[in-house]
Amino acid sequence: MTDMDDKEMELRSAEALAPKLERWSVSAKNVVYFVPNLASWQNLGVITAYPAKYLPDQLLAKDTKIFLDFGETLVGKVRLRLECICQPDTPIRLKTMAAELPYEAVNDPETYQSGLGRGWLQEEMLTAYEMPMDVVLPRRYSLRYLAITVLACPRSGVKITSAEVVAQSAAGKDLPPPLPDWDREMALIDLACFRTLRNGMQEVLEDGPKRDRRLWLGDLRLQALVNHVTFHRYDQVERCIRLLCACTDERGRIPSAVLLKPHPCAGGFLLDYALIFARLLLEHCKFTGSLALAEEWFDLARLQLSFFREGVDDQRLFHASGCPRVFIDHCPALDRDTPATCVAIWSAEALAELAQLLKRPAKEIAALKTEAAEWRQALRDNRFDSKSGMLQSGHSRQLSWASQFWGILAGVLSPEEARAALTKWEQQPEMAVKPNTPYLMHYLLEACRKCGMEELLQNTIRRYWGGMILRGADTFWEVFQEDDDFYTPYCDTHDPRNNSACHAWSGTPSFFIRK
Amino acid sequence: MTDMDDKEMELRSAEALAPKLERWSVSAKNVVYFVPNLASWQNLGVITAYPAKYLPDQLLAKDTKIFLDFGETLVGKVRLRLECICQPDTPIRLKTMAAELPYEAVNDPETYQSGLGRGWLQEEMLTAYEMPMDVVLPRRYSLRYLAITVLACPRSGVKITSAEVVAQSAAGKDLPPPLPDWDREMALIDLACFRTLRNGMQEVLEDGPKRDRRLWLGDLRLQALVNHVTFHRYDQVERCIRLLCACTDERGRIPSAVLLKPHPCAGGFLLDYALIFARLLLEHCKFTGSLALAEEWFDLARLQLSFFREGVDDQRLFHASGCPRVFIDHCPALDRDTPATCVAIWSAEALAELAQLLKRPAKEIAALKTEAAEWRQALRDNRFDSKSGMLQSGHSRQLSWASQFWGILAGVLSPEEARAALTKWEQQPEMAVKPNTPYLMHYLLEACRKCGMEELLQNTIRRYWGGMILRGADTFWEVFQEDDDFYTPYCDTHDPRNNSACHAWSGTPSFFIRK
Repeated sequence: MTDMDDKEMELRSAEALAPKLERWSVSAKNVVYFVPNLASWQNLGVITAYPAKYLPDQLLAKDTKIFLDFGETLVGKVRLRLECICQPDTPIRLKTMAAELPYEAVNDPETYQSGLGRGWLQEEMLTAYEMPMDVVLPRRYSLRYLAITVLACPRSGVKITSAEVVAQSAAGKDLPPPLPDWDREMALIDLACFRTLRNGMQEVLEDGPKRDRRLWLGDLRLQALVNHVTFHRYDQVERCIRLLCACTDERGRIPSAVLLKPHPCAGGFLLDYALIFARLLLEHCKFTGSLALAEEWFDLARLQLSFFREGVDDQRLFHASGCPRVFIDHCPALDRDTPATCVAIWSAEALAELAQLLKRPAKEIAALKTEAAEWRQALRDNRFDSKSGMLQSGHSRQLSWASQFWGILAGVLSPEEARAALTKWEQQPEMAVKPNTPYLMHYLLEACRKCGMEELLQNTIRRYWGGMILRGADTFWEVFQEDDDFYTPYCDTHDPRNNSACHAWSGTPSFFIRK
Repeated sequence: MTDMDDKEMELRSAEALAPKLERWSVSAKNVVYFVPNLASWQNLGVITAYPAKYLPDQLLAKDTKIFLDFGETLVGKVRLRLECICQPDTPIRLKTMAAELPYEAVNDPETYQSGLGRGWLQEEMLTAYEMPMDVVLPRRYSLRYLAITVLACPRSGVKITSAEVVAQSAAGKDLPPPLPDWDREMALIDLACFRTLRNGMQEVLEDGPKRDRRLWLGDLRLQALVNHVTFHRYDQVERCIRLLCACTDERGRIPSAVLLKPHPCAGGFLLDYALIFARLLLEHCKFTGSLALAEEWFDLARLQLSFFREGVDDQRLFHASGCPRVFIDHCPALDRDTPATCVAIWSAEALAELAQLLKRPAKEIAALKTEAAEWRQALRDNRFDSKSGMLQSGHSRQLSWASQFWGILAGVLSPEEARAALTKWEQQPEMAVKPNTPYLMHYLLEACRKCGMEELLQNTIRRYWGGMILRGADTFWEVFQEDDDFYTPYCDTHDPRNNSACHAWSGTPSFFIRK
């Protein structure tokens, strides 16, 4: 995909699939306040001050700060109607902060300390003079709460007579109907998965509509799974696949992410994400019943394996050091050699299956299978610890759950070994490097299903994803550690304000519940 | 003018005269910094860091603050082009402050303390993600300087590759050519008058395009004088007269000000401004050579005298207490009885002259002249201090320069007394309550001209208005006290940031220089 004309043609195909965003209005439900509460997530409890329908009665004085709760996390524009009781002789100035979680709403942006730019904080300042005035805040936000501070107003104050989010999504407003067979806990989890996917389904399938707002390959595969059991917007998955393919580099590497604006362009390369592309392609073909995309992109998908091979030594062992970045999880200490190898095996197997569907020559299919088997054997020979029955990673022989989850999916662990390993995970999670993100936790769910541990799968969903619900989530969070409310992968300062609270890779339980 | 249909018709006439604003682009001239300097206005000296043409070479890091100097005070929108050296992975956030004077640019709006709302400070915050991007700041500003603080950007920084003001005025870009006969000092004063009028000539003739931004009757008369020797946009003066007349109240009182948006409406009542309307009307007819407007509004102009009469006692003395507000000057301690009476006399005389032009019955003309003479006589009998040769005001017999300037214009002081009083003003200004604004100083200029003191007139222009030029003005300031850089009529906190630095009532020397 080095030919510029090809890239242009591909971008045009993607453009033809650009969605028509559906928009709908959601009025503020309540005026709330946040109170220190050690039992609440990030130590902030939410208390309703009064229903927002009484807001038009309030004259807000200078320096007043109020918090609006829109009742659910939404993505869209914010529209406020401002009125004064008489023609103001001085402009009204408001400071606003759109927030997914209370912690973002209550804290002053001036105190923000994080490796991620303050530009992601959803703060604005606006000035209005001609009253009454409808003000639309200048950008798109992901929010449940809106903090409004009156910086300036006439002596008689200012009223907010209407506050609404004009929400938007390519998937439309309506969430799929709940499954009849599940209890309330599971129904809430299911609903939060839908909302997470819906909110991220914008001009592309975004990872987090608050922060980053990009198409990421690793997230896309997971979104495609949930899309299959909910909105069935395969056109949007295809659009994203085309965008990724249009943005490959001169070596044919599929980027880990695509920035859509001002012109689609690649955002880096992650080896495991590139390898996952084959699986995404295979599943898309199965979901849609069409091989068209596979015909187009099989060669590109297979090419990604060659970038993995660059890190493989004579013993057929992969070494992440010196190779392109491997993600697997937000975990700097994680040794990625074994998990990355497992992703490659799992990718090669998907390619073999695709090759069969495409009726490619038997030799080609066999070669893929052989290579997967060789890498699998090399791990068995060199990284399987027969004492623990688990896979190690790297020269340091690190024991991590990432290695086990991916080892199960890659078939490096037998079904019996898999079940034994996952039982250990249940009983002694501390014995190995633990997952930090719902992304890796998703692959635990896949591993559970693969080795038939449906009870663990369900319990994991209830405990981990249900744990977010218990803590107030209505969309699922980018990172979640049950014992650390302030964990963030982006800085050492424990400022979690730019963790995304509506994140594509976290919304997959519905796929398992409904499949 | 209580009939709603009449009001609507009048508004439509005014709307038909709405100007087409001319727009032109002015690029930033220099990047400057401001240094503490006790010899400079408000203790801030301006030093050029580098010409703005080198700005595109600068990568601005997070927390950088720069100041742009556009070379002259302008009114309009601000457009910035932002670029990064690579696709940014985080939004750029800038804080901006548009400023007429350095003091507004360097000080943090969080420290703002004034009786006037912070909403007038020309601060913004903007966020941009898709690079390169042209950003237009959301409002119209009056500025010479723009402070830009980088709140967030990628690690590699952000560049401002273009910074311009898209200036606007109903009078157009070009200032009238300089008078050949004057020296550089007078030419600079003349130019600053033009610029002051040009910058305020927007959808209406505004008092201050930074703060207040309204049509004020008192300012309008002075703008009409300068307009007559410069832009000759009599249509805009007529439009403003019609707007004022459309906004009279149910008693027929002409408002002191009109707010144009969202719908034209009255902004209060000041008795002296309402009385000045007659003079404005007379001069407009003389300047245009047409009596049309006078035919329409003579009765309304004359009606304003009746609101003055409400404050007149049996001795034909006026008492401002208990009457509508009288302005005269920003000076809480000023006794307004005598100055207001003089304004009424001066108004009655203008009405008599108008009545003659309109060929109204002789009785009507005589009645106006008689009333003026009676009020004049009452002042002579009761408020003239033969020892000092000057007029006093009120029960406290306050001696103020306002009483003298207006007493001269109203003919209460004879030409000899006038010259003697103005000589005292030159020699012992401290002996009476002094003027605080260029507005009252304008009436000193009129008084000089009336009694033939051309040298004092010229010296006053050079010393007072030239004093602003010496202190860095290129438009004239709303308030100016030579010995107090931080004087403001709006608060006790000496925060002058919302004093207007381009103010209609301050730009009148050109009228005297050119007439």
